[in-house]
Amino acid sequence: MINNASLGEIGRMMLEADTILLFPHVSPDGDALGSCAALCRALRGEGRTAWILLDEPVPEYLSFMDTEYCTEDMDVVNSPDICVCVDCSEESRFADRAGKFNAGKTKICLDHHATSGSFGDYYYIDGEEAATAQIIFKLLKETGLPVSPDVAESIYVGISTDTGSFQHSNTTADTHRITAELFELGIDHTKLVVNLYQSSSYSRLKMESEIMGKMELLSDGRAAMSYVTQEMLDENEALLEDCEGVVDILRNIRGVELAAFLKEKNGEIKVSMRAKSYGNVDSIAVKYGGGGHVKAAGCTLSMSMDEARDLMRRELCEYWEK
Amino acid sequence: MINNASLGEIGRMMLEADTILLFPHVSPDGDALGSCAALCRALRGEGRTAWILLDEPVPEYLSFMDTEYCTEDMDVVNSPDICVCVDCSEESRFADRAGKFNAGKTKICLDHHATSGSFGDYYYIDGEEAATAQIIFKLLKETGLPVSPDVAESIYVGISTDTGSFQHSNTTADTHRITAELFELGIDHTKLVVNLYQSSSYSRLKMESEIMGKMELLSDGRAAMSYVTQEMLDENEALLEDCEGVVDILRNIRGVELAAFLKEKNGEIKVSMRAKSYGNVDSIAVKYGGGGHVKAAGCTLSMSMDEARDLMRRELCEYWEK
Repeated sequence: MINNASLGEIGRMMLEADTILLFPHVSPDGDALGSCAALCRALRGEGRTAWILLDEPVPEYLSFMDTEYCTEDMDVVNSPDICVCVDCSEESRFADRAGKFNAGKTKICLDHHATSGSFGDYYYIDGEEAATAQIIFKLLKETGLPVSPDVAESIYVGISTDTGSFQHSNTTADTHRITAELFELGIDHTKLVVNLYQSSSYSRLKMESEIMGKMELLSDGRAAMSYVTQEMLDENEALLEDCEGVVDILRNIRGVELAAFLKEKNGEIKVSMRAKSYGNVDSIAVKYGGGGHVKAAGCTLSMSMDEARDLMRRELCEYWEK
Repeated sequence: MINNASLGEIGRMMLEADTILLFPHVSPDGDALGSCAALCRALRGEGRTAWILLDEPVPEYLSFMDTEYCTEDMDVVNSPDICVCVDCSEESRFADRAGKFNAGKTKICLDHHATSGSFGDYYYIDGEEAATAQIIFKLLKETGLPVSPDVAESIYVGISTDTGSFQHSNTTADTHRITAELFELGIDHTKLVVNLYQSSSYSRLKMESEIMGKMELLSDGRAAMSYVTQEMLDENEALLEDCEGVVDILRNIRGVELAAFLKEKNGEIKVSMRAKSYGNVDSIAVKYGGGGHVKAAGCTLSMSMDEARDLMRRELCEYWEK
């Protein structure tokens, strides 16, 4: 853990401010958005002006969350007292909004990525926390801010999605203790689970089964790889976000230790990787300018899909030769 | 909750006995087997003779558990001091072993099925508990029996499988608090998750995608149904247990409230049903001599697959006409 202020101190700074702007990372996931939503709502509850600044719409699978505190309007607050980047390991994770972030009178960074550097005037980064939402929960408690059922639900979204429903190796006793508290604070668990895990579209199921058909098993079944192109998506009337869980399905095959899923997006290839028990996919991602965690990491390749598949096939096969 | 003895009293009875035989339900699942394994191991740790009596092999997906305490030998203990049926709502759930159960000097029933009747000399049945494993955990603690990492892992198997990885509506604050304790007791979380959720066989993936191809959406997409025959299994070299999660995949489709999955087994049709938010599949299952919980229930139909599909199609469509 690295920090130059306690969570209570950071919380009190926010309460001393009038305007707070929150910056989740690009392609915000459940933890980035859930963490921001919880903090934003709690600050608004104390009469502060608080917004979540995005440069893209909220992903459809998270749109069930109350998103009226999200805006793409860079001028929503002209000269914010505090800017907070949330769940971002580096400035490149909110590049198009970095100018606005740096215009904040005070800049704060809250994150749980072990690879996160210290930036901003104040930072609290703890790679031991399963989700940034756990840090936000502790911040609210240490600052004495009330945790309403709505705030608790946003925290739950962050924890549940970043731990893969309490299955990823980042899950700890603390994760379950906090979640027990969220239940006691009155979360609507069924609503959350239905929206997060029981709302696959029919096109998603079709897409998944086509991607499974293109799967390659490598290295005697120790690695699995598949991919999706824009053409495949178009044919199935599916969206890239319909492929969200595919890399986990690949990893979940018996005997598979490393999984890679390649997605074509805006002419580049996004690679999502997973390790199951002992593997380290962060080490592969970092080689290509990406990063993440030991068991879940990713990178972006500027090449064709065929070239990217060749490259990743080589990386996965060579993993055991080192 | 119905009981005629406290968990501490039941635990002390077991400690006063020399020989204890445990009876999980037929087709034992993670909760039945995990609960029995935890209790069996804890009793053996106190020097008691304890066995889990089965009339079939342990399902392959649970075979990673230490199963040396499971036996199919009806004579493993000749005249047991105590027989305990675990996670069985009625005697028919262990019909082929009921004679042996009733030969026990003292008979005890531990269960979390709300529909469970009181039978045995002593019983403790709490439909509010997410899993029988939670009851076993409380029994061990109230009796002062040590919970070793191995025992904690068996409890985890019960809780995690019966709550669908903390997603089913039976999950409570208590579930998460107990799980936090299990982490502190030293469970190997990665090992458990890999074995329970990340060990799908390739044939299972193939089987699942074929079953998805046979899916029917009914009632304007509010119900989903599919099926598997012995012939389909044979063609894919798959086992019935490879279809374990299919009913959940059906329920997880956006807009689907009720899901039914029909499996041919020994010339009969086993129906597994799920409800998502407000539906009640127990009410359908009970009509055909089955049962379970409001959101997860099942029944067995003695008819052909075509007849069973017709019947269930009608049941699912008529559900909204009541």
